[in-house]
Amino acid sequence: MQGKPLTVPDDGLTTKQRRNRPLVIVHTGPGKGKSTAAFGLALRGWNQGWDIGVFQFVKSAKWRIGEQTALEALAAVHAETGQGGPIEWHKMGSGWSWSRKEGSDEDHAVAAQEGWAEIKRRLADEQHTLYVLDEFTYPMKWGWIDPVDVAETLRDRPGTQHVIITGRDCAPEVLEIADLVTEMTKIKHPFDAGQKGQKGIEW
Amino acid sequence: MQGKPLTVPDDGLTTKQRRNRPLVIVHTGPGKGKSTAAFGLALRGWNQGWDIGVFQFVKSAKWRIGEQTALEALAAVHAETGQGGPIEWHKMGSGWSWSRKEGSDEDHAVAAQEGWAEIKRRLADEQHTLYVLDEFTYPMKWGWIDPVDVAETLRDRPGTQHVIITGRDCAPEVLEIADLVTEMTKIKHPFDAGQKGQKGIEW
Repeated sequence: MQGKPLTVPDDGLTTKQRRNRPLVIVHTGPGKGKSTAAFGLALRGWNQGWDIGVFQFVKSAKWRIGEQTALEALAAVHAETGQGGPIEWHKMGSGWSWSRKEGSDEDHAVAAQEGWAEIKRRLADEQHTLYVLDEFTYPMKWGWIDPVDVAETLRDRPGTQHVIITGRDCAPEVLEIADLVTEMTKIKHPFDAGQKGQKGIEW
Repeated sequence: MQGKPLTVPDDGLTTKQRRNRPLVIVHTGPGKGKSTAAFGLALRGWNQGWDIGVFQFVKSAKWRIGEQTALEALAAVHAETGQGGPIEWHKMGSGWSWSRKEGSDEDHAVAAQEGWAEIKRRLADEQHTLYVLDEFTYPMKWGWIDPVDVAETLRDRPGTQHVIITGRDCAPEVLEIADLVTEMTKIKHPFDAGQKGQKGIEW
């Protein structure tokens, strides 16, 4: 639901300027739904005609093939009819889509760094309206990518570019510059009762 | 990611039977992403060819028009090419899609009860593989729909039908029979800084 501002900030911006301010959104915490909610937001962006780039930073259960296939179907609808917006999907573990290298023997730290370097180029070029950096907290957590560089790059990015970051244990430097942070907490989970993941639910 | 069961339950089921056990999923709590993550799960279900029914129980910001439009585009892809599965979207506040009544003067409690009665019929008929009951916690909270009836109906539903319920303050009777409960907690929100909702992010 649309909320009312609790306070009016003294930032010299009009309500409309604040309304259209680009956001950094973080979905973190140990519960389910961090990435799923990010892809749900991509549905809204698609309907607004936004240019969307998805960047997956670690191997996920079956590579989120359900979401990828569905979003690529929406990208095809856009290409054929003009409805919605374009969507690109890039993943690290088998070699980034823009790179020619095959990924089987790649160094994961180097691959993560290449991914972030490309995202920095795209942010500088204002290439997308919405960036989904899926499981991007982990390469920061593992020391492969500097969270200070991420925080400064996102804080200083030009234009109107929204960025969603998902994953557990987000670096405090990134939380500090984020506009919206939601934590997903597990209350009850079928794995606790001895059940394994199943298609359609887990991937 | 796929998890390993922590315990093996003494329920007489094989791993495969447990794996394909239909789930009741609840997204609750005061944070963002409860409904958005449910629609993200619908992307996975669509890719599996599931028959999906979405039922919106309260008026939401612009009716979640982004998600509705995107999922209806995917339903059209299915109708034209056979890819994915069918998706129906029904909403209460302007009269349920299956009802002939126009909604402007309707009693919201009666409309909610009609919606739940229809969902019970569909569950008995095993009409859908995935039911998204969006903001369904509220008519229970407001005393319009009996949570004991909901809990018993979901617990005893036939076949393989997954159900996702979203909204704050979910009734304990429903949490009790749920297989997966995730709470979304707000850590930081731009409304706190005087910003209003914006298209593409809030709807």
